[in-house]
Amino acid sequence: MSKPTLAIVGATGAVGSVMRDVISRRDDVWGEIKLVASPRSAGKQLPIRGKNVTVEALSESVFEGVDVAQFDLPDEVSAQWAPIAAAAGAIVIDKSGAFRMDPQVPLVVPEANPEAVRDRPKGIISNANCTTLALIPTLTALNKAFGLQSMSVASYQAASGSGQAGLESLYDQTQAVSGNRSVGTKAGDVADAVGVDGSEVFGAPLAFNVVPKVGGWRDGGWTSEELKVRNESRKILGLPDLKVASTCVRVPVAIGHSQAVHATFASKVDADAARKVLADAPGVTVVDDPQAGQFPMPIDAVGTDDTYVGRIRTSVDFENSLEFFVVGDNLLKGAALNSAQIAELLLPEFA
Amino acid sequence: MSKPTLAIVGATGAVGSVMRDVISRRDDVWGEIKLVASPRSAGKQLPIRGKNVTVEALSESVFEGVDVAQFDLPDEVSAQWAPIAAAAGAIVIDKSGAFRMDPQVPLVVPEANPEAVRDRPKGIISNANCTTLALIPTLTALNKAFGLQSMSVASYQAASGSGQAGLESLYDQTQAVSGNRSVGTKAGDVADAVGVDGSEVFGAPLAFNVVPKVGGWRDGGWTSEELKVRNESRKILGLPDLKVASTCVRVPVAIGHSQAVHATFASKVDADAARKVLADAPGVTVVDDPQAGQFPMPIDAVGTDDTYVGRIRTSVDFENSLEFFVVGDNLLKGAALNSAQIAELLLPEFA
Repeated sequence: MSKPTLAIVGATGAVGSVMRDVISRRDDVWGEIKLVASPRSAGKQLPIRGKNVTVEALSESVFEGVDVAQFDLPDEVSAQWAPIAAAAGAIVIDKSGAFRMDPQVPLVVPEANPEAVRDRPKGIISNANCTTLALIPTLTALNKAFGLQSMSVASYQAASGSGQAGLESLYDQTQAVSGNRSVGTKAGDVADAVGVDGSEVFGAPLAFNVVPKVGGWRDGGWTSEELKVRNESRKILGLPDLKVASTCVRVPVAIGHSQAVHATFASKVDADAARKVLADAPGVTVVDDPQAGQFPMPIDAVGTDDTYVGRIRTSVDFENSLEFFVVGDNLLKGAALNSAQIAELLLPEFA
Repeated sequence: MSKPTLAIVGATGAVGSVMRDVISRRDDVWGEIKLVASPRSAGKQLPIRGKNVTVEALSESVFEGVDVAQFDLPDEVSAQWAPIAAAAGAIVIDKSGAFRMDPQVPLVVPEANPEAVRDRPKGIISNANCTTLALIPTLTALNKAFGLQSMSVASYQAASGSGQAGLESLYDQTQAVSGNRSVGTKAGDVADAVGVDGSEVFGAPLAFNVVPKVGGWRDGGWTSEELKVRNESRKILGLPDLKVASTCVRVPVAIGHSQAVHATFASKVDADAARKVLADAPGVTVVDDPQAGQFPMPIDAVGTDDTYVGRIRTSVDFENSLEFFVVGDNLLKGAALNSAQIAELLLPEFA
C-alpha cells in the first residue's frame, strides 16, 4: 500500500514554513508532498523532509491525486478553494476561520475530539484558532474530570499571531525604542518613537505596550478573536452551554500565546486534584513549582509541541473553581502542529 | 492661618520623585515641605515647587512640626518608622503594604471612601497597591450603580511596578534583544540574550516575555499581589464578601498597569448603562470607541492622572455581567497621586 499524497497549500507563509518543519521532523507517513502557493511563488524551491520541492501555483488541477490538503490561507481564499480541493477528492484541513462554525465541518483538536474527523460531509475539517488551541488540551482534561461550566479568559497574545508581518513589526518597533532610556514614560512617546508603521499591523504601537484588540470588531464591542475563544471552545468541547467571558490582548512577545483562566466546574475541585488530572493529560505539561521559579512563560514554550499549564490555584472565593495560566506556541499547537496531528488521524483511511 | 507642613519620606526613590512632581504641579496648599531619605542621601539637593530643597536623614527629630508625612518606603522600614512619625504628631500616609489590612488603619482611595481618612486611631492612613488603585475608581462607580458581587481580574503590569530597578532592567533587556531579528523564536533564546541579570528583578526575563509572578509567593500558590487585589478591593469598597479571582502578570511595558475585568453585579446592567455611569465617575475617563481605534492602553495613560476604562461589553453568557479593560499610571494614581489626594483630604483639619 503506498503512502497517501499530501499537499501543503500556502507553503510559503509563516505557518506554511512551520508546517514544512513539523512534517519534516514527525514520522515520515506521507508519500508525495506537493507545495502549493499563489502564482507569484510558483517555481520557488522550498525544503521539506531534507529535500527541495518546487512550489506549484494554486489551481484546480494541482489537487489531482492529492489525498490530504493542508490549507493555510486567508479566510476568503480558503472559502473559495477548499470546496474545489474537496471536489477534486482531497480531504481538506483548513486553518482559516472560514468553516470553523459550519455545522457540517468538524472542528478538531486531537486531544479533545479525534473521532470528529470521520464525520465530514463537505470533505473539510477545520483547525481551531491559535488562542483556543492553547487552551483546549488543558480544558479537555479538566472538563472530563470535573465538568467545565464556565470560564473567564484573558489572553496575552504574541506578535506572530499577525503572521510574519507581525513578527517583523515587533522587531522593527523594538529597534526603534531601544537605547531610549525614558521611552514609555510620557503619553505618546512610544507612538512617536515607532512611527505610524507601528500601528499598521496591530492597530496601535506594540513595543512597550499592550493592545486590547486582536482581530476585527464585531457587534457589541467584541473582537472576532474573543468570540472565537467562546464559540470554538464550545464546539470542540461539545459544551454548547459553556459560559465564556473573554478579553484578548496583544503583547510585545514574538511567539507564544498565554492565557489567565478562571474556570468553574460542576463538581468539587482543588489545585492538587487538577494537577493530578493534568499530569496525565495528552499534549499538556504541568509547570507549576512557583517557589522554584517554575511557571509557564512564552520564552520557554516557543518552539515546543506541548501546551503548558501552571499557577494552578484553588479559588479562594468561588466554589468548585480554579485559577491557572496556560501557554502554547501559537505557530505549533496553535496552528501547524495541530493540523499535522489532524492529518495523522486520517492515516487509517489510507492503510 | 499658616499652611500645614509636609514631609516626603523616601523622596529620592522612583515614586518619591514622581511625588515631588505631583506636589509641584498641584494647588500649592502646603507650607514648608521637608524632603527626607536614608542617611546616604542626606545633604542632596532635590527640586520641588521650582526650588531646591536639602534632603534630611530619616530620624525621630525630623518629624517635629510636621503635620502630614508622605511615606514611600519598603514595608519593613514603614512598619518601623510610621508609628514613630505618628507619635511625633504627623499624620502618616503610607504607600507600603505594612498597614493596609490593619483594621485600625484606613485604606483610602478618594473616589471611593474619602470619609475614611477621619477614623485613624494610629495616626496612619494607608495608600492602596498600584494594581488595586487602577481598578477602584471604575469599580466604585459601577458598584454604586449596580452592586458589585464578584470579579475575575487578569493584570498586565509594567516594569516600573518594581521601581527604578525594574524600569532600568526593562531598558537593559530591550537593548540586549534589539537588532536580533529571530529572538523569541526558540526556547531559551531570550534568556540567553538578556543574561542572568534579566531574571533578577522580575524572577524571569521580561523582554519579549510575560511573567505570571508579581510580588512574593504565598500559601496555595498565590502571589502577594493577587491577594492584595482581592483584600484591598474588599476593604476600600466596603464589600467584605466580594468574590475575587485574580492573576497578576508582568509585561514588558515601562509604566502603566492594565487589567482585563469580568464583573458580575446584583442588578441588571449592560454596556450602555455602564458607560453612562462611568462618564460621570470621578477619576475615570471612558475611552471606548473601538471602531475609531479608541481603547485604553498604557502608552496613552502614562504620565496622566486619570484611570481609563474601555472595551466595555455586555457579557454574552453571564447574567448581570460586564467585561472591560482598565489602565492607570502605576506611579501616579497607582502611587504618588493617590497619596497626594489623600493628603489634600486632610486640609480642612488645618484650616
